[in-house]
This record gives sequence, C-alpha cells and structure tokens, in this order.
Amino acid sequence: MSTSDRWLLPDGVADVLPPRAQKVEALRRELMDTYRRWGYELIIPPMIEYLQSLLTGTGNDLDLQTFKLTDQLTGRMMGVRADMTPQAARMDAHSLRRPGVTRLCYAGHVLHARPSSMLASRTPLQVGCELFGSRSSAADQEIIDLMLETLTAAGVETVHLDIAHVGIFQCLAEEAALGSDLEQRVFDALRRRSIPELDELLGTAEAGSARAMLRELGRLSGGEGVPDAARQRLAGAPAPVLEAIDQLEQTAARVRERHPGVAIGFDFSELRGYNYHTGLVFAAYTPGQEEALAQGGRYDAVGEDFGRARPATGFSADLNRLLEAGWRAFGASGGAILAPAGTDAALRRRISELRRTDTVIQQLDDEAGDRVPPGCDRQLVLRDGDWQVEPL
Amino acid sequence: MSTSDRWLLPDGVADVLPPRAQKVEALRRELMDTYRRWGYELIIPPMIEYLQSLLTGTGNDLDLQTFKLTDQLTGRMMGVRADMTPQAARMDAHSLRRPGVTRLCYAGHVLHARPSSMLASRTPLQVGCELFGSRSSAADQEIIDLMLETLTAAGVETVHLDIAHVGIFQCLAEEAALGSDLEQRVFDALRRRSIPELDELLGTAEAGSARAMLRELGRLSGGEGVPDAARQRLAGAPAPVLEAIDQLEQTAARVRERHPGVAIGFDFSELRGYNYHTGLVFAAYTPGQEEALAQGGRYDAVGEDFGRARPATGFSADLNRLLEAGWRAFGASGGAILAPAGTDAALRRRISELRRTDTVIQQLDDEAGDRVPPGCDRQLVLRDGDWQVEPL
Repeated sequence: MSTSDRWLLPDGVADVLPPRAQKVEALRRELMDTYRRWGYELIIPPMIEYLQSLLTGTGNDLDLQTFKLTDQLTGRMMGVRADMTPQAARMDAHSLRRPGVTRLCYAGHVLHARPSSMLASRTPLQVGCELFGSRSSAADQEIIDLMLETLTAAGVETVHLDIAHVGIFQCLAEEAALGSDLEQRVFDALRRRSIPELDELLGTAEAGSARAMLRELGRLSGGEGVPDAARQRLAGAPAPVLEAIDQLEQTAARVRERHPGVAIGFDFSELRGYNYHTGLVFAAYTPGQEEALAQGGRYDAVGEDFGRARPATGFSADLNRLLEAGWRAFGASGGAILAPAGTDAALRRRISELRRTDTVIQQLDDEAGDRVPPGCDRQLVLRDGDWQVEPL
Repeated sequence: MSTSDRWLLPDGVADVLPPRAQKVEALRRELMDTYRRWGYELIIPPMIEYLQSLLTGTGNDLDLQTFKLTDQLTGRMMGVRADMTPQAARMDAHSLRRPGVTRLCYAGHVLHARPSSMLASRTPLQVGCELFGSRSSAADQEIIDLMLETLTAAGVETVHLDIAHVGIFQCLAEEAALGSDLEQRVFDALRRRSIPELDELLGTAEAGSARAMLRELGRLSGGEGVPDAARQRLAGAPAPVLEAIDQLEQTAARVRERHPGVAIGFDFSELRGYNYHTGLVFAAYTPGQEEALAQGGRYDAVGEDFGRARPATGFSADLNRLLEAGWRAFGASGGAILAPAGTDAALRRRISELRRTDTVIQQLDDEAGDRVPPGCDRQLVLRDGDWQVEPL
C-alpha cells in the first residue's frame, strides 16, 4: 500500500475543513435555536441500534441504505442509522411516552450504504423536526412552515414546493384490486412517471373505474389548476381521495399566504417515501438541483409498529446541501489576536481576559517569530509595561 | 419478534432525551467556542473511512474497537471511526498541508465495537483539540491547559491530573534489548502494575542495568517527590529518559502555577495509548470514576505514516461523561409561551415576533384546549383586540 492510498476517502465521503466546518456549525446552531423557539425539543438518537428497531415501520429502501454490523457482545445484527425519523418515532412511542403532542428536533450524521444518487453524500448531516400526536392539518402546516424557515435560514432564495398525498394512490389501488404483481408494476411506472407504461398496464380500463383513475394520476401534475383538474378526473373516487385533494388545495392556499415567494406544484404521481408515509408529503427544490433539498410528510403508522399508535408528521434535510444551496455568509467574525510566546504572568492574564470575547493565538517557542497564523489581524504588544492590542 | 423487542437498545447504546440533550448541546457549544477563542479551528471528519486510513499509525487497540463495514461500491473494507485524533492527523498531513502550526478541534460521535469497560458507552460524543507542527513543551502545556479548561467548563470540581512519558519505557526497553517476547510480557506486567510479575521477569537483573530500571518503573508512581526518586533510581539511564523526567517535573510545576486546585500525580508505569503516543501523556480523573474523564498526549509519528512528519499533541474527552461528572446547570432558560390554535393573521404576526427571542408553542386544532404542553409558563391572550403575553 502506498502512502497516498492512506488518505483516499470512499466515494460520497468527504472531510469538512476550516473555514467551512465553522459555517456548518453556525447554521446548525441557528436551525436548532429556531426549532427550539417553535417548541421543538432536542433529542440525540444513537448512531447504532439493533436492525429490527432501526427498520421497524420503514420500508425496503431504508433497509438497502442501512449499513449492517454484528454486535460483538450479543451476535445480533445492528445497523448504523440511515434516517433519524424512525428513531424519533421510537423515542416518542417508547422512551418518552408522553400524553398529548410532542415536538422533537435533531441534528446528526446518518450513513448511507448506497448513495441516494450518483453524486450524493453517503454521510449527510441530517437536521429535522417531527411532530407526534396530532392528525390536524395545522400540524402538517407547522412542519411545512418550519421546513421553509429552514431554507430561509440557509439563505436558499428560490424555492419550489411540491406537495402530494400518498393516500390517493393507496386508496385507488385498494379499490382497483389489482393484485400484488400488477400493483407493483403500476407503482413502478407511476414512480418513473412513465405515461406509455401506465397506458399499457391500465389502458383497457373502463372510464370512471379505479383503474382508469390510477392511469390519470400520472397525468396530474403542475401548478395552480391541478387540484381542480383532479377533482374532475377523479370525480367518482372514494371519499378519502376527494378529501386528500381538498387537503392539498388548502395546504397550497396557506403556503401561498404565508410564503408568497414560494412556487407550489402538485404531483399526483409522487410516491417518494411511500415506504412509510401515509398522507400529505412535501418536498422543497431549488433550481439547478435535481434532488429535493428538504422533504417530509405524514407517517401515522410507524408509532403503531412500536406499540403505540401516534399520528406523526415531520421533515428533514441535509445541512451540508442546504449550505451549498444557500447564499448566507456565516462565520465572518473578527480576526484573531496574535500573542507572543512566553509564560510571563501578566501576559497570561491578559490573554485569558481577551479570550472571554476574542480569539487569541499564542505563538509556541519553536515557531518562527515572523510567521503569522492564518486569520490574525491584531497582535499583543508590551508597551510601557502593559500588554496592548495593536493592529498587525 | 414481540413489540417490546423493537425498542431494546444494545448494551452501551442509549437515547439522549430532552431536557438532557439540550444540556449536551449547551456544553458542546461552550466548548467549541472556548477552543475557537484559543485559535483552534473546527473540522468535521467523516463518520466512515477506508480501514487503512482510519488505522494508519494507530495500534491494535483501535483496530479491535473499530466497527468494520464493506463498501458496497468498491468491495473495500471501511471502518466507522472509533477515535477522531488519527482523522485530525490525516487532515493536517494531507487535506490541509499547511506550513507552520495548525490547531484543530472537533465534536462528534465515535463508535466502539467493544466498550472500553463493562459500563462504558459504545457511542461516546468525542470532543477534543489537536495541535500540529510544534515539538515545544509550550504546545503540550497549551493542550493540558485546554483539557483542564474543558473540565472547568463542564463544572467538574475535583480534578486529579496524571502525567507520564511513554518515551521512558520505550528508551529503557530498547536499551535492555529484551527481545519481543519478554518485552511484551514486561509491557503487560507494567500495564497491569503487577510488581510481583515484574520482579519475576526482571528480578535477576544487575543493579543499574536497563532491565533493573524497567523493574523500578512499576514502583515509581505518586505525588510531588516522584520525579526526584526517579532521578535517583534511573540515574544511569540514557539521556532521553533523564530529559523526560525533567519535562514531567517542569510540566507539573506549570500546572501547579496555573491550576492551583488540581492534584498532580506521576505514573512511570502508565502505558495507556502506548499504541500511538510518543512522549508526554496525561489524563484527568475525578473521584468516584475509575476511567479518565479526559486524556491526551504527544503522538509525533502518526503524521509520518500519512507521508508528512508532523509533531503533534492533543487531548479528547467524552462530552456525555463530562456532563455526568460536572455540576453545571445548563438550559435553565425561561419557560415557553402557549399560543392558541388558529390562523388569524394578527396572531401569526405576534407569534413570529415573539419567536425572535422566545419559545412559542401553538396549540393544534385537535389538541385538548386545557392540556398545557410541558415547559409553558405564559400564554398569548387576545385583550381589547391585541395579542398579549400573560402568566399562565
């Protein structure tokens, strides 16, 4: 092995160096403070859990993304978390077990065994909020508001919000009784937004049947007029489908009122997160990036798998991607003060005082006296028996 | 699998719940701010790396502690970091490659495949500082100062600092030419501080020989008088041994001057971290806890393994253990304000204003109106057309 091999990092894995790491820290703090002011309490879920806890209530996608480890103490399979949302659901259902509404937030690294796309990170820094114990649209709305606040805090200027409702497909697929094989093929075609394939699979369906409506889903996406179009084309659908359309429309109206700069799109073929989502789902995009910057939705069934039925909604984002997409300049704090080497008591006292508010870098005995460490713009100089700060 | 199995966590793995998680966050921020004011720049090393990077320059102990993973993209072995110090050395030697002194700090979770002791966490939250590019004792001293500042910030009141120098054993073992088998047995006996075993292994050695001096190491531990005793008993030792004794004594003198409340002990049989440490090593203890709360030392050889010889010294600690050992009350911030449900524009405006400084929890439509969320001590009430904050 050559020396150079020793510092190659795996694909999708990267160091965060100064000064970028300080910007990550600044945005992390700002977001955690924002979430706290909305009543969200910080949790720190563990990096590893037994696989069965980690994957309870979640789907196959998360299983594939999860790194598996053997617990040397018990021989049982563990996983490194690939998503903190199911951990938050476990903590709400079991560790906290509070009555009423619980609001939780978190920031931490997750690991992905496979990157979610070619260029994606395998070590995202996930931040997010989860709201447990309320089925109300006000809960979904609060989560959407917080997700959009998150993008604003990062300085992401142009935001496109996609909203969808996984209950529509669920309900129509059940009504159509496609059988598991055909249902899977329809699901895949919808997910890939392949209209020809949908036509092939469902083209012979009788007009107005659930099958015909499933075929329409692939054609229902776009802006303002879409809910109306959906109400026409899915006119005979079961009540939950029509309620879902109403909820999409009401949500869009509220977002328009509160976040007038945000463009809103509806997508009836959106099945992202179908693995554990159950109702309204949403994702925020910015131009030039194919993958969503932040995403979330309702997942009322996960808590039940942990032995406590709890409605839930939440969102999450990768802080590193937020920082890339935003314009916010963080960490433009004042420069550091350079202090000379030495153990003189007065010098040490002065350095300690200054460090209450400023950065002071003391030179070391073996450092070249004329090398100024990066970031220093002032120096500590002895004048008339006093240590004084002067420009460098 | 029963439902209850789904929330069992592995031994040594735990959730951090509210309000404790907020305390962890508060101490984390305070420490990172302190390190920054001393000129240490934040880095965020990745959670996973190829095993050969992660273990370069480190010893067998770290190998055993490291969780191994297969990279599904390349088939190569990766590891989850068990210690961030070697990562910092890699980043200094390769990613940063700066001339002169580089000061780095970090805070992040590490994973241990085996807990370091029966009750130890397998997911410590490691915080620490590393100083690269200086061989001076001033560098070691700065790191010791910061380590003790870290304990003070956590509110750890009674601190015992153990200092040692792994160069003493290294030099005497080389001089004694024990052969690898006997050297390993002497090393193990010293590590376990087993005097009878040392006597058995080295009892026949001629007085004044390197072997006899190795035998003495096990007997050289305690307080103030120990360096003098060492100078007598190791009188004929090679120069590096005598220099190491001087350095131990000088370090102790500085610590006494700067941190008068800290008790200092010397331990000539201390070989903790012998795997990659090369010079002065130190560890901070508090009564009632067998394991060190914080520890560090010099490791001049790791950078070389990364292709760049860089002297280095640093310390690290587990933030969760610091919080347990300290008395500091964090997060005693003011209570939250409860706002009623509703989408009234004036109410929303008032909530947004208040959230600039306060925590405001808005009730959801389906919440029982008389349930007060935990932590609320005020409420938002409509009086004469104005939303006002009143005691709850």
